This record gives sequence, structure tokens and C-alpha cells, in this order.
Amino acid sequence: MKFKLLLAGSLVAVGAMALLASNINEKEKQRVELAKAPSEAGIAGKEKSEEWAKYYPRQFDSWKKTKEYDSFTDMLAKDPALVIAWSGYAFSKDYNSPRGHYYALQDNVNSLRTGAPVDAKTGPLPTACWTCKSPDVPRLIEEDGELEYFTGKWAKYGSQIVNVIGCANCHDDKTAELKVRVPHLNRGLQAAGLKTFEESTHQDKRTLVCAQCHVEYYFKKTEWKDAKGADKTAMVVTLPWANGVGKDGNAGVEGMIKYYDEINFSDWTHNISKTPMLKAQHPGFEFWKSGIHGQKGVSCADCHMPYTQEGSVKYSDHQVKENPLDSMDQSCMNCHRESESKLRGIVHQKYERKEFLNKVAFDNIGKAHLETGKAIEAGASDEELKEVRKLIRHGQFKADMAIAAHGNYFHAPEETLRLLAAGSDDAQKARLLLVKILAKHGVMDYIAPDFDTKDKAQKLAKVDIAALAAEKMKFKQTLEQEWKKEAKAKGRANPELYKDVDTINDGKSSWNKK
Amino acid sequence: MKFKLLLAGSLVAVGAMALLASNINEKEKQRVELAKAPSEAGIAGKEKSEEWAKYYPRQFDSWKKTKEYDSFTDMLAKDPALVIAWSGYAFSKDYNSPRGHYYALQDNVNSLRTGAPVDAKTGPLPTACWTCKSPDVPRLIEEDGELEYFTGKWAKYGSQIVNVIGCANCHDDKTAELKVRVPHLNRGLQAAGLKTFEESTHQDKRTLVCAQCHVEYYFKKTEWKDAKGADKTAMVVTLPWANGVGKDGNAGVEGMIKYYDEINFSDWTHNISKTPMLKAQHPGFEFWKSGIHGQKGVSCADCHMPYTQEGSVKYSDHQVKENPLDSMDQSCMNCHRESESKLRGIVHQKYERKEFLNKVAFDNIGKAHLETGKAIEAGASDEELKEVRKLIRHGQFKADMAIAAHGNYFHAPEETLRLLAAGSDDAQKARLLLVKILAKHGVMDYIAPDFDTKDKAQKLAKVDIAALAAEKMKFKQTLEQEWKKEAKAKGRANPELYKDVDTINDGKSSWNKK
Repeated sequence: MKFKLLLAGSLVAVGAMALLASNINEKEKQRVELAKAPSEAGIAGKEKSEEWAKYYPRQFDSWKKTKEYDSFTDMLAKDPALVIAWSGYAFSKDYNSPRGHYYALQDNVNSLRTGAPVDAKTGPLPTACWTCKSPDVPRLIEEDGELEYFTGKWAKYGSQIVNVIGCANCHDDKTAELKVRVPHLNRGLQAAGLKTFEESTHQDKRTLVCAQCHVEYYFKKTEWKDAKGADKTAMVVTLPWANGVGKDGNAGVEGMIKYYDEINFSDWTHNISKTPMLKAQHPGFEFWKSGIHGQKGVSCADCHMPYTQEGSVKYSDHQVKENPLDSMDQSCMNCHRESESKLRGIVHQKYERKEFLNKVAFDNIGKAHLETGKAIEAGASDEELKEVRKLIRHGQFKADMAIAAHGNYFHAPEETLRLLAAGSDDAQKARLLLVKILAKHGVMDYIAPDFDTKDKAQKLAKVDIAALAAEKMKFKQTLEQEWKKEAKAKGRANPELYKDVDTINDGKSSWNKK
Repeated sequence: MKFKLLLAGSLVAVGAMALLASNINEKEKQRVELAKAPSEAGIAGKEKSEEWAKYYPRQFDSWKKTKEYDSFTDMLAKDPALVIAWSGYAFSKDYNSPRGHYYALQDNVNSLRTGAPVDAKTGPLPTACWTCKSPDVPRLIEEDGELEYFTGKWAKYGSQIVNVIGCANCHDDKTAELKVRVPHLNRGLQAAGLKTFEESTHQDKRTLVCAQCHVEYYFKKTEWKDAKGADKTAMVVTLPWANGVGKDGNAGVEGMIKYYDEINFSDWTHNISKTPMLKAQHPGFEFWKSGIHGQKGVSCADCHMPYTQEGSVKYSDHQVKENPLDSMDQSCMNCHRESESKLRGIVHQKYERKEFLNKVAFDNIGKAHLETGKAIEAGASDEELKEVRKLIRHGQFKADMAIAAHGNYFHAPEETLRLLAAGSDDAQKARLLLVKILAKHGVMDYIAPDFDTKDKAQKLAKVDIAALAAEKMKFKQTLEQEWKKEAKAKGRANPELYKDVDTINDGKSSWNKK
């Protein structure tokens, strides 16, 4: 009997040890597979993120989950005053809150802002508008040269730029190290007196890879001659950081205004107030750097790509959290010790304060434009309106920069409120001058028309949404299909990966209501 | 030889143990002395903080060190627009940043705001203006009754209120426990739906003792009959908190405006714009409660009266740190882990943002008052100016509340910026209406006169600083000396303790330049 017990016991022990051994081997296999960096030759077709999947299955799986962020807010419907603020410019046609990176490229193609080109040469926008949407961009910059890439109309590369923001935008395909392949970032960093990407620490690089795109930029008109000596004009993405950015809690907005004024740059001329205007793009980096997290060295990736654990493997979650509040355990709780609901409540207070001043500021800005329009109608001269236009130009840029990156109210709540207030005050100062100018031209009691709905505002901004939607749909049924056909034929992208990226007919569109 | 070594060794040991014993006894003596709470009878003459020194020598010594905070900023010289904002009210005469508690009483007596009474019955201010300056106040409330205390002119109690803010303001003299003896705080807390002082935790009490004074209040006119049936009118310190205070990051300012409008209350009528105005007092509590430290349960005392160690005794430092940045090791570093200079830099950024919007807001407010004055001059009716005055009344209170407590920019930086911006926008909206009203009355190009120096501003506000200073000096040489003589005769205060509290002739005065 004692023998039988002994036998049973040792069998159990042997079984347990076998299980343990297989588990160790399994982990070892995983470790080897993981450590097996791509060979010296790198990853063929590295623009296709699925080619990286073999080496980084977890990062690739989480990257695909950016697809889950599929909803958006029609910002022009939410804040109709923005239509008036951007009247005469593409943003008055169509402007939505961002979706997950998975949709970035298709949303760019679907946006009424990129218009309805009929061939590679028709506008309205330049090639630069692809710059932040795809790893095909650094490829084309390396293949065609930066100036050639930035020359020509957006439609020129429709069939070439077909893979959405992915691994090759931020990683070296030979070593997987963080890497930036678009030249404009280093130029901007140097102009601002900051370290270049290569000179930066790994922790700073976990922010700077995002700063390739989440920054304010403009297209710098650059005359150049190609290899055959032909004269060409490039519209080069350039960061206006020469007067400093994010220093001592200041995002650098006033410095950018000075920069733009000195080079007499404007993005467009407002079609109501005829003001030379500046459009703020998404200054996530500038505001992050001036806020408390930035000053404490917390990188974008710490919260938006937090470390996560699967089995024994710890890796950076590539879902790129749209709102880290949705993953507080991974993003916030590494440092913060209060309850998630309390922390969420505190962040919501910041949002409400921004919304409060956002409404005040853009209501004043919208009225300033319309009242200037009325003054022109009443005969006011450009000379009379010079100071008014300067105040509107500066005031709107301050307010726009404060809201153009949707996370600013969190990354730098105080700088956001300060700039909204400063922008609002500039607009009110313009309006004070306008009352006098209008009175001088016999207009005593002009009250700007309402713009409290998207419809009313777009009518005032002369945006013919129906026509724009129709021509866009036509473009989608013609030129876009040609692009897709060519891209498929050339194997530039994996259709399977993007089979349901275009939600235009799923009710998820700001203009296609069918 | 062995014996000698043994003897020497044991002598050393005995010596060491004797030393140890004496040290233990010393600590025991300290512990007993400290634990020896005042007897059941309490502390005779408890208004005199020196009477507590026997029991609490360390707290008393540190309380005396509030004397070290002896410098101040003449706020009207720093921000002359404040003179215009408060034109027609005492604050346009004299308003300085606060000094240590040690000077609170004498500064109240020396301020041009309390004027130059010639006897117990002359104004200009009511008895309520003593309320936050002395433990003699709760004594008088208990002796005379609250309504009697709040009846009559400031000068009524000149010889009675002679001990500066001290132990009896916040502690029970029998148990040393935190205690509040002025009824207005609990009434305010209950109106706001908050726990009374007695219902609160010890940690909350370490804030609420400060909230006896560091709050917004007004004097509520209260008709009453005394014991003999005589009709009297009391001006009772009352907290306008019925619409909530510090909830979800909102200090409650808009709720207070609603409260004041509903009871049709105003502190004074502006002597330029004839607007029924509200003066914000020092809402430290309301803004602390809406800020991050308040929401995280950090009390006033945690930073302003931090625990400090002397020998083996740990006690709360009663120097009441004017600026905890001067004692960061005690105040901030218990929770914050970054470098002191970095933390100081971050706080300074908050100050600069507040100063930026403070200038914008009060510049607009000052101009709104002057432009309304011009409109009145040009014949504008009260009816025409109704909306203008409402905007000025509301706008100025928002901006004033944001700056009236000097620490708001730190306690609640975002709420401070939001309210400065909202106040500024109200003023600009008033000015927009005013341009049209002025134009209607034939005034096309009115530019408000400069008020960029205290001198210019006080001239516009019709403040005759020389006359005020002369009458004040006369009061100091006459009635104040009578008060001091009577107080000394009655042994109400210890002259030695206050021998150099009056710095009026040491160059430390905002009006006595000799």
C-alpha cells in the first residue's frame, strides 16, 4: 500500500514538473520570437503595418484596435460660431473631432476639406495635406525628395498614399527603435532651440514621434528647381517655432503670431471680414509641453500608449488611447492615487471651464467678422479697418490654438483658458472699434445675424453643403475608385485590413446624411 | 590591571545611563507640561494670547513670528485700475496686500478705509469691520449679544478691541480644541448645505477656523429691538452662500451674484457710473474649496500652519505662513516630490497668467465705468444704461472675487482665470453698448482718460488723499490715543507685546509718506 501511495505521489510530481517545463519553454519561445529583431535588411513593404505583425504581434493587434474609436463629433454642429470664424476656408465646410488612427487616411479622403479633384492636378489642397496620415509619406519623401513631395496638388498621390498611420511612421524597421523620417520636425526643434529628435532621450522621443503631426504648422511656399532645371513651387510643412515653444508654461502662441506677422503669412483671407487669417492646426505638443504633465516629463506615450501586460510579456499598448480616461488603470493610476471617479470629475471641471470660455470667445469672434463685413458694406476703407483686422487675426489665432488640439484643456488647462480669454478680448476690442466705424458710416444699430446653428452659419459663410457633398460623392465614385484600383494592382495596401474603414454610408459622416 | 579596566568600563556605562535617564526625564517633563491642558476654568483673559503661552510656549512663540511678515504692496499703486473699479467706495482710498496677523488690527486702525471718527458714534464704517481682527470680537458678541455687537459705528469698540487675531479666535480655552465662536460661519455653511463646524472632521476644522474670516461676506441690514424695546439696526456679517460654494470646481460666484441680485443688495453706488456695485472680500475658502488642494482634502493649516519639529516635540507652526513657498520643506514637500525650484517655477507661471488677465479685465472695467460716466454727462437715461450697469455690476464682481484673495491664483488657478475672463467679457459687452449710447447722444469718439498711475486714478475717483491722510493722522493723535489709554487702564491688552506694531511712521504706510 505504501508503495502505491509513493508511486501516485511521484506521478503527480512528475506531471506538475512537465507542466512547468512546458510553460517555461512556451515563455522562452515567446521571448526568442520577440527578441528576434527584424534582420539587417529590415521589413520589406514596411509601409504596410501588417508586415511588422510577425515580429510584434501584440503591438500590431493593439494598433488595429484604433479601429474601435469609430465615432466623432461634428464640431461645426456643436460650435456653429467656428463656421463663421473659418468662413472662406475649408474648415468652414467640414470639421469633426478626430477618430482612431485607423480612420485617419479615409477621413482625410472623405473630408469636404480635401474637395473633389478630378485628376492628379486639380486642387483644392496641396500634397502637404497627406503628411500626417500615412507611412507612405516618408517613403515618398525618401523616393521623390522632400521638395518634390511637397509640390503639386493633393490628388497627385491619391493612389500612392494608401496605408494608414502605422509602424513605419515612428519605428526603424531594422531595429524597431523610435525614429522620425519627416524632416520638418527637426527643423522646427532647432528653430525653437530645442534638442533634435536624435539628441533627445528615449522618454522625450516617446513624445517627439507624436510631434511629427500633433503640432501647429503652416505650408511654407518654397520656389525650387528640379533636376531638369524646371521651376517648381513647393508648399512645405513648416513649424513656426522660431520664437520658442512651451517655455515656462507658455505654449508660444504669441511668439507664433509675431513670426507669422513678420513673414506676412496668412492661411486665407476671410470671405466676410476680408481679414488675412491664420488657421491653428492641432498644437498638442506645444500645449503638452507648457502644461504640468509635460513639465514633469510625462510623455504622450505614457498615457496614450501605456504599458500593458499579456501573460508574462509587458509591452506598450499601440491602441493610442483617444482619451486615457478610458484606461485610467493603465494611464493615470501609475502616478495618481485618488479614486478614478474623483480624478475623472476633476478633468471634467477643466473641460467645462474650457467650454464656458470657448463659447464666449468664438461668439465674440464671429460677431467681429460679421460686423466688419457690415462696415465694408457701409463703405469703411481698408485703412479704417486695419487695426480691427489685426485684432481679429491675432485674437482668433489665440482662441483657435487653445481648442484646435482637443486635449489642450487637459494638457494645459490654464494656458488654454488664458488664450481663450486673450482671444476673446482682442475680438471685443475689434468690435468696440467697429461700433464707431459703423456709426461713422451711418450704421447705428447693426446687430450681427444669428449663427447658432450649423445651417445658419454655413449660409452666412456661403458654404453650399449640398453641392460640396454631391461633388465629393462623385469624386468618391470616380477618381477615388481609380486610386484604389491602382493601389490594389500595385499591392500597395492590404484591402482586407481596410475593408470597412470607409463609413461614409454607415451614417457615420458629417455630410452624407443618407 | 584587569580590575582597573573593569572599574573604568563600568563607570563609563553608569555615566551613559545617567545621561540617558536625564534625557528621558527631560522629555517626560516636556510631555507632562504639554499635556497639562488648562484647567476646567479655562484661561483667564483668554483674549490675550500671551495668557496661553504657559501651556503652549511653542505655538505662542511661532504665533509671535507673524510679526516677521511686516511688508506689504500698495495694490492701488500696483494696479491703479482698481481705484476706478472701486471709485466712491473706501477701497479706492487705500488697499494693501495683507501683512502677518500680528499687524491685522493696527492695519485696520491705520487704513484710510476706516476713516477718522471723532467719537464712538461717528463713521464711516460699522462695528462689523472689526470682526476679523481680534479675539475681543467673540468676547463682545458673547458679552453684548451678536446684534448689539453689530450695531453702531466702528469707533464704538475702539478701546475694547485691542488684542490681535490670536489663540481665542480658533481654540477652546478649556480643552485647546479647535472652536469657532462667531455665529456667521455656521449660518453660511448651513445655507450652502455644508456640514456645520461642529459636524465637521478635525481635518476640515483646520480649514473652517480660517473660514471665519477668509470668505466673501456682506453686512446684512437687520432691524431689531433691544431689551428695552428700542429699535436698532445691526449690520450683520453674513455669507452669501445659499446657492452653493466650491461645488465641482466652481467657487460659487455666479450663485452669489444671483443671491445679491435677488435681495437687491449693493455695497455702494459707484460715483462715476452710478452703478449699484458689489465689493468682493477675500474669498480664500470658496476658491480653496473649488481648487485641486481643496478637493483632495488638503486643509489651510496643512500648508499655512505646517507641522514642525523642535527636539522631540512635533507641533503645528502658528506663524501662519503668508506664502507657504517660503517653507516648502514643511508645507509642500510632504506630498510633492519634484525639486523646490521647479515647483516654485510652476506656481510662478500661475501667478503670471493671473496677472495677464487681471490687467486685461480691470482695464476694461475701468473704461466701462468712465464711459458710463460720459454717457450720463451726455444725457443718457437710467433706462438706457440699465443693461450696461448690470454687466458692469456682474463683471466687476467676477473679476474682483478672482483677485480679492491673493492666493486664489494658486488655490484655484483655473477658476481664477475663468472668472477674470468672464468679468472682462461682461465689461467689454457693456462698452459695446456704451459706444452706441454715446453715439446716440452725439459723442462719437470718447476715449476714457488714462488711469495708469494711482495719482491719476484717485483724481478721477475724487479721492483727496491729502485730506484723508490729514484727518487720519489727527484721529491717530486724538481718539486712537484715548482708546489706547483706556485699554491700558483696563488691562485689556499687553502694551509690551504690541509696542512696535504701529509702523505708520517707519515708512511702512501706503499714505503717510513722511
